[in-house]
Amino acid sequence: MTAPAACPDPALFEFCLRMGDNTLVLGHRVSEWCGHAPVIEEDIALANTALDLIGQTQLWLGLAGEVEGAGRSADDLAFLRDAWDFRNLLLVERPNRDFGHTLLRQCLFDAWHLEMLTALCGSSEPRVSEISQKAVKEVSYHLERSADTVIGLGDGTPESHARMQDALDRLWPYVGEAFLPDAIDAEVAARGIAPDPASLRAGFDARIGAILAEATLSLPDSRFAHQGGKTGVRHTEDLGHMLATMQFLQRAYPGATW
Amino acid sequence: MTAPAACPDPALFEFCLRMGDNTLVLGHRVSEWCGHAPVIEEDIALANTALDLIGQTQLWLGLAGEVEGAGRSADDLAFLRDAWDFRNLLLVERPNRDFGHTLLRQCLFDAWHLEMLTALCGSSEPRVSEISQKAVKEVSYHLERSADTVIGLGDGTPESHARMQDALDRLWPYVGEAFLPDAIDAEVAARGIAPDPASLRAGFDARIGAILAEATLSLPDSRFAHQGGKTGVRHTEDLGHMLATMQFLQRAYPGATW
Repeated sequence: MTAPAACPDPALFEFCLRMGDNTLVLGHRVSEWCGHAPVIEEDIALANTALDLIGQTQLWLGLAGEVEGAGRSADDLAFLRDAWDFRNLLLVERPNRDFGHTLLRQCLFDAWHLEMLTALCGSSEPRVSEISQKAVKEVSYHLERSADTVIGLGDGTPESHARMQDALDRLWPYVGEAFLPDAIDAEVAARGIAPDPASLRAGFDARIGAILAEATLSLPDSRFAHQGGKTGVRHTEDLGHMLATMQFLQRAYPGATW
Repeated sequence: MTAPAACPDPALFEFCLRMGDNTLVLGHRVSEWCGHAPVIEEDIALANTALDLIGQTQLWLGLAGEVEGAGRSADDLAFLRDAWDFRNLLLVERPNRDFGHTLLRQCLFDAWHLEMLTALCGSSEPRVSEISQKAVKEVSYHLERSADTVIGLGDGTPESHARMQDALDRLWPYVGEAFLPDAIDAEVAARGIAPDPASLRAGFDARIGAILAEATLSLPDSRFAHQGGKTGVRHTEDLGHMLATMQFLQRAYPGATW
């Protein structure tokens, strides 16, 4: 269990972890491109996206730590939890593979993220609303950029089209998890803190449908969805490898600071 | 510095680290194939090679710890040093890439390793000689196997030949380091503990020349050699990533045992 029994608001704590772990894990994945992207313009754009996501992580995990009331900082939550205590969607822990795969993963996440943050701006919990109002501006730009790239590569050369279709076929089974509600979602929805995840599906489908159509990519028929990320029940092997790298410094040199 | 000032025999300590870090790092690299090799026979063969190398590591790093006299066990040396304290050749920390690349790296290392261990069987230091007499039997089998595979893939299809030539072009600049002596080598050679590394080059060239000729692969002209692994001065980025994964358990759960 992540939350000790004494946590005064386990549902809000878990919800903040879910938001913050999504941006932490995707932010780290995107940062892996730093110095490796195909052109310098993209390298810098990816690094900026990663920085936005890590900035949002500080807010979400900072709030999670406050809500938990056990003295854990955002850094403690980021660097000193093991895989089973992470609450991110499986989508964001998928490895980068090629540039097109990375941008398609980004676009799928951005489209969900924008729907979610837009709804969260009206949260009954003021701190959730505040974070979301800041983040939604960044994320609408993320989506604009990732969608443009997905369209450019999908409706590009035969090689880029084939790679993007392959990426979509690989990533699509990781999309559905974001829209499947559980008991935590039900509680925070009932309290007006967050929307029912299922309610975001129609807006997501409309956005992504339009982007993929313009990208000349075919949506896979199946709506099979891998699950276990946001509940922490079953992460992929790749998350553990990512955490090993991401957490090395704090694990090897506990308490190290700049 | 790895060795505290009080270490009674820094040269022997460093020499044992070099031998043990080579087998540790290569053993871990090879173990990364476990469950991923192209056919089950090869998967098991690679896992067995990895186990041999890790077994040799326990002996070399165990001896290093004894020589150092500071109470560090082989496990301590394996799991609680950071990259700059590792003394392995850069060759063995190169990433696996494809199966052919892995086996060519293995063959190049095995050919050097066999020359080295054969010489070390006559070491003036009885514990070095004992370890080498055990290890040399395993390693002569490793070389037989890796050479067979290099020959089969090099003299195979146009695709496998091209991949093996590419692997050789990539790996060759990491071969020379093994034969370049430094002050540690000079001291252990003067004391009859180990051969002058340069003295192993002719035997290595003869072995590898014959294998590559049968594999129809062309030796690159250049003898340029990347350096910094066995001295610890400059490892590649890949070693740090490997250690993050390899050391995660002991870093995250200090002192954990079975």
